[in-house]
Amino acid sequence: MVQGSVNLNIERGKEWLQDYVDNWVNFYQKQTDEGKVANYIPRLEHADPNTLGISIIGKNGTIIRSGDTDSEFSIQSISKVLSFIVACMERGLTYVLQRVDVEPTGESFNSIMHLEINQPKKPFNPLVNSGAITISSLLKGKTSDQKLEPLYQLLEKILGHRPEIDVDVYVSERDTSMRNRAIGYYLLEEGYLESDLSITLETYFKHCSLNVTVDDLAMIGLVLSNDGIHPNTDETLIPKQIARVAKSLMLTCGMYDASGKFASYVGIPAKSGVSGGILAVVPPRVREQDLPFIEGCGIGVFGPALDKQGNSIAGIKLLRHIANQWDLSLF
Amino acid sequence: MVQGSVNLNIERGKEWLQDYVDNWVNFYQKQTDEGKVANYIPRLEHADPNTLGISIIGKNGTIIRSGDTDSEFSIQSISKVLSFIVACMERGLTYVLQRVDVEPTGESFNSIMHLEINQPKKPFNPLVNSGAITISSLLKGKTSDQKLEPLYQLLEKILGHRPEIDVDVYVSERDTSMRNRAIGYYLLEEGYLESDLSITLETYFKHCSLNVTVDDLAMIGLVLSNDGIHPNTDETLIPKQIARVAKSLMLTCGMYDASGKFASYVGIPAKSGVSGGILAVVPPRVREQDLPFIEGCGIGVFGPALDKQGNSIAGIKLLRHIANQWDLSLF
Amino acid sequence: MVQGSVNLNIERGKEWLQDYVDNWVNFYQKQTDEGKVANYIPRLEHADPNTLGISIIGKNGTIIRSGDTDSEFSIQSISKVLSFIVACMERGLTYVLQRVDVEPTGESFNSIMHLEINQPKKPFNPLVNSGAITISSLLKGKTSDQKLEPLYQLLEKILGHRPEIDVDVYVSERDTSMRNRAIGYYLLEEGYLESDLSITLETYFKHCSLNVTVDDLAMIGLVLSNDGIHPNTDETLIPKQIARVAKSLMLTCGMYDASGKFASYVGIPAKSGVSGGILAVVPPRVREQDLPFIEGCGIGVFGPALDKQGNSIAGIKLLRHIANQWDLSLF
Amino acid sequence: MVQGSVNLNIERGKEWLQDYVDNWVNFYQKQTDEGKVANYIPRLEHADPNTLGISIIGKNGTIIRSGDTDSEFSIQSISKVLSFIVACMERGLTYVLQRVDVEPTGESFNSIMHLEINQPKKPFNPLVNSGAITISSLLKGKTSDQKLEPLYQLLEKILGHRPEIDVDVYVSERDTSMRNRAIGYYLLEEGYLESDLSITLETYFKHCSLNVTVDDLAMIGLVLSNDGIHPNTDETLIPKQIARVAKSLMLTCGMYDASGKFASYVGIPAKSGVSGGILAVVPPRVREQDLPFIEGCGIGVFGPALDKQGNSIAGIKLLRHIANQWDLSLF
Repeated sequence: MVQGSVNLNIERGKEWLQDYVDNWVNFYQKQTDEGKVANYIPRLEHADPNTLGISIIGKNGTIIRSGDTDSEFSIQSISKVLSFIVACMERGLTYVLQRVDVEPTGESFNSIMHLEINQPKKPFNPLVNSGAITISSLLKGKTSDQKLEPLYQLLEKILGHRPEIDVDVYVSERDTSMRNRAIGYYLLEEGYLESDLSITLETYFKHCSLNVTVDDLAMIGLVLSNDGIHPNTDETLIPKQIARVAKSLMLTCGMYDASGKFASYVGIPAKSGVSGGILAVVPPRVREQDLPFIEGCGIGVFGPALDKQGNSIAGIKLLRHIANQWDLSLF
Repeated sequence: MVQGSVNLNIERGKEWLQDYVDNWVNFYQKQTDEGKVANYIPRLEHADPNTLGISIIGKNGTIIRSGDTDSEFSIQSISKVLSFIVACMERGLTYVLQRVDVEPTGESFNSIMHLEINQPKKPFNPLVNSGAITISSLLKGKTSDQKLEPLYQLLEKILGHRPEIDVDVYVSERDTSMRNRAIGYYLLEEGYLESDLSITLETYFKHCSLNVTVDDLAMIGLVLSNDGIHPNTDETLIPKQIARVAKSLMLTCGMYDASGKFASYVGIPAKSGVSGGILAVVPPRVREQDLPFIEGCGIGVFGPALDKQGNSIAGIKLLRHIANQWDLSLF
Repeated sequence: MVQGSVNLNIERGKEWLQDYVDNWVNFYQKQTDEGKVANYIPRLEHADPNTLGISIIGKNGTIIRSGDTDSEFSIQSISKVLSFIVACMERGLTYVLQRVDVEPTGESFNSIMHLEINQPKKPFNPLVNSGAITISSLLKGKTSDQKLEPLYQLLEKILGHRPEIDVDVYVSERDTSMRNRAIGYYLLEEGYLESDLSITLETYFKHCSLNVTVDDLAMIGLVLSNDGIHPNTDETLIPKQIARVAKSLMLTCGMYDASGKFASYVGIPAKSGVSGGILAVVPPRVREQDLPFIEGCGIGVFGPALDKQGNSIAGIKLLRHIANQWDLSLF
Repeated sequence: MVQGSVNLNIERGKEWLQDYVDNWVNFYQKQTDEGKVANYIPRLEHADPNTLGISIIGKNGTIIRSGDTDSEFSIQSISKVLSFIVACMERGLTYVLQRVDVEPTGESFNSIMHLEINQPKKPFNPLVNSGAITISSLLKGKTSDQKLEPLYQLLEKILGHRPEIDVDVYVSERDTSMRNRAIGYYLLEEGYLESDLSITLETYFKHCSLNVTVDDLAMIGLVLSNDGIHPNTDETLIPKQIARVAKSLMLTCGMYDASGKFASYVGIPAKSGVSGGILAVVPPRVREQDLPFIEGCGIGVFGPALDKQGNSIAGIKLLRHIANQWDLSLF
């Protein structure tokens, strides 16, 4: 999928890197037993809990893939990053941030009470459900397909192919996610929404149901790492400032109630979904040693067995291990 | 205060930098009228609301100082970063994080309800009052002076002088901050504290009452930027991993209820206090252009007129302006 | 409307009573200016804010009517008492109370957060919206009309006529009350509902839209006062135990966030609605003096100008005045 | 203790009544195993969990005592009713209710968050800890003994003897109840308190530590039943209006998170304490049959094994049984 020019120095180390990553994927794959596959959307329950796969794509085209990299899985909450980006590209950052804040919340991602207790003028951030649904209402277009077309086009430019909706997941989510409807009506009552509620929810459920692979996530991460510019084409797909805010949001709010721990222990922007996917972004970094992916990379992980916070249990451990070894932290 | 070797290239630009910073300090100083000096501790009310000062110290010794850089002010909540660091150095990161979490909370810094609603096994993070008071209880020593001695020594090594408590502020805070006593007793009941409550609160109030200048904050920021190593002496004053977690915490939780916005718009670890101080940390960064302080710097700001979230109103604007111009963001 | 036998002793005093009530209705009618007509359902806004009317019907048939007693208004939340009673008659008290608790809540009547914070196994009580919607789901029948037929029949037996739905109010409420839909979906997700949500909400909106007069409310109150027995026919329309629980609920939770104050200052079971109606129940009481309506009575009030808690501002004052003069309190 | 004139009709039935009560005390005493003795104050843990005792004293002097009626136990939260009454007698009802509301809250009795979430201008009611501590601050006097002297005198007039503090309980409570100190400091910060905090808490802990017996509670209940007039002396010990508000409060908020259920199933004003005591008030009632204690009575219960809500598990069941049999409900 990725056909980049290859940095020769890293290329010499690539075999070693591959062995290294294989080794640790193998190691952490055994710890998937400690987690549980999400069951809140019926369609997600069928995933194999013992799966673990990773893809790492560097700016220079180096790619390390290990474990189960073929599985397609629904992107779920990771898509909230993308819908936020597209809304900002359509409406401008200022317009969007006037309607959805970018503050972390100590409450659960599907909480309504944080709106009721705090009575903010807007949802806390675009990565909790109340914020993401509001973002869906801001996307331009009258139908959910019209609203999502720019997001599909953005993904097509990033990935080289157009993503597809897993219709079973979409229908399953649309028909069972009553909490999201509750949130939607709450937002409607409070005047947060700028589109018809049913179109808004349809849009939200659709973008959560897009199928991706770990390579897809890694490529998205790479473009974000590279300030929105596709490293192969040098095309600016996302304005730098919007990419920055997206990465900031991922760092402060991307990993559910473990966002702060992930920032402390791993230290890179990341967003997870209940299907077990993780999108991680490694910006270029200044290090005295020559470390892997020093120019930045994108990482995609898939491991559907989740920990209590709803993050891929083995995926988190694998990312933490690699981040510590390769000194990936932003801080 | 800072006697470092000087990078000649930057030195050539330094005059320009100085003019640039003077210009913007002057510009934003006029906007201090929009904020208000904190009055919750009587002693803080006397600050001149129209003050604004900044100090920026680079790894190579470059220093830019502008506006009111002579004022001493009490460090207030900024000290929570330091007490967290010292607790981790004394007890180990694992021990401390078992007792205080590192998760952002959508609630106010002095909230008790987030503990009561969420019933976490530990306070949310070391930068809200409940976490900082718990951290004070973890510091070793039987008296508050014993508990704080390592913190004083750390500051002495960073600053070259021993910080002093503003006794009036300390007494004022000790005698009026009933909310902190409420939090303390709540923590005591829940079994979070590992020292006598009165010693714990005394410790907390004392470290909040330390006097600092913008240069002091900039030097602290510089050491954090440099992974805990003093750039003049090359001595490791703070273990790298602890410095990293401290910076992560500052980014996710450092600026009260505006932490997410600060991360999005400015993008660097920072911690503010109600006296109007801001400690900011700029890690070294990879940029194609030659930008000021590319090797990292520490920044200290003082501007006692606060915005609604309790952050220096002009300080935030000044930092945002400079961060955008010099591309300081981590992301 | 009410053609009961008349107690001669009271009859002799009736003229005096009439003058007395007329006098105070006149007095408190002037205070309607301090309140505001509800605007959350568009259709309610058109009510004349200066209206005040009362009907008091005693067990012996004495009836005192004063002020605007002709207006029809929608029963709104007062109907929650009736749907609760009918659900208990259909399902049994035990069955219903296993699904809806009878505890007061300090939160607003349309709160969702009290469910999310407290995570009770059931809504707090049948008089907050979450409880009332759950009660609608418990009513037997597949359609909203089937579900409400027993309630209509009960009212027909109490009032002598079949109540009618104000279609404008019903449509207005159905199409605008997004908060109630939010609550409904929340309840659905949590598994509280025993009927299809749309039927449940339709049922709820319909019974809130029934048209009543102050005489109707007084008659309902009289039957409740008389332990569920219609005083004219001696027919038991509501089992005594269910009537008792309904009255207890009215006392503890019937007057929104002023329930405790109403219990303290007035001391009788009552339920208000945002249209400005109040249903009040005076059980028979033991007093040394011969006081009006000593054998119990029902009271209906209508005054659409509301106070901050959502209760008829003049209605509350009128009831309080009369309760104190006639020593109506249960306590 | 109570030497009243005796109503002959009831007297004829008294032997039967005694057998009846003995029988049910015996029956419910076996269910004490389902509860647990409170352990939050160390001193309370030593109570015998299998104890159950009751005293019922009628207006005419009839007294039925059964089970363990000799035990002295600390009055705990039941005293909140008394301190509220005394504060109202000293300050006037209006003054007190401007400072403490009379609204039920769905939160726990020792909650702080309901203050923080709702930001009321005053604590919710005098029977939750925040309200009771505020009431202690309103009592006149500079020392806790001065503040409590009128309460002791009131009890002396009701009981014929002066109550005594259980010093062990008082010290235990004072030294361990950190949550109450947290509440106290919270109230102090918010400006709710009108006395020095330490005096206020001392007052609160002292009145909670008064020793009583079931006879004492029954006598207090009898005086409240009789509108504040001692039936033996005809002296008005508590103004009728204050007694009424106290009974209303007991009904709406007296039984912790089971207040609504107790009102529904038992239907009489009552207040329980964590020591296992219950004070219940039966106002005179209108019934067609000649039922026991038709002219009103006071009831004292002691059963230290508590249910999950903190009420005497066997005491509640016994009261419910008797209330249903004798038709005691207010409603």
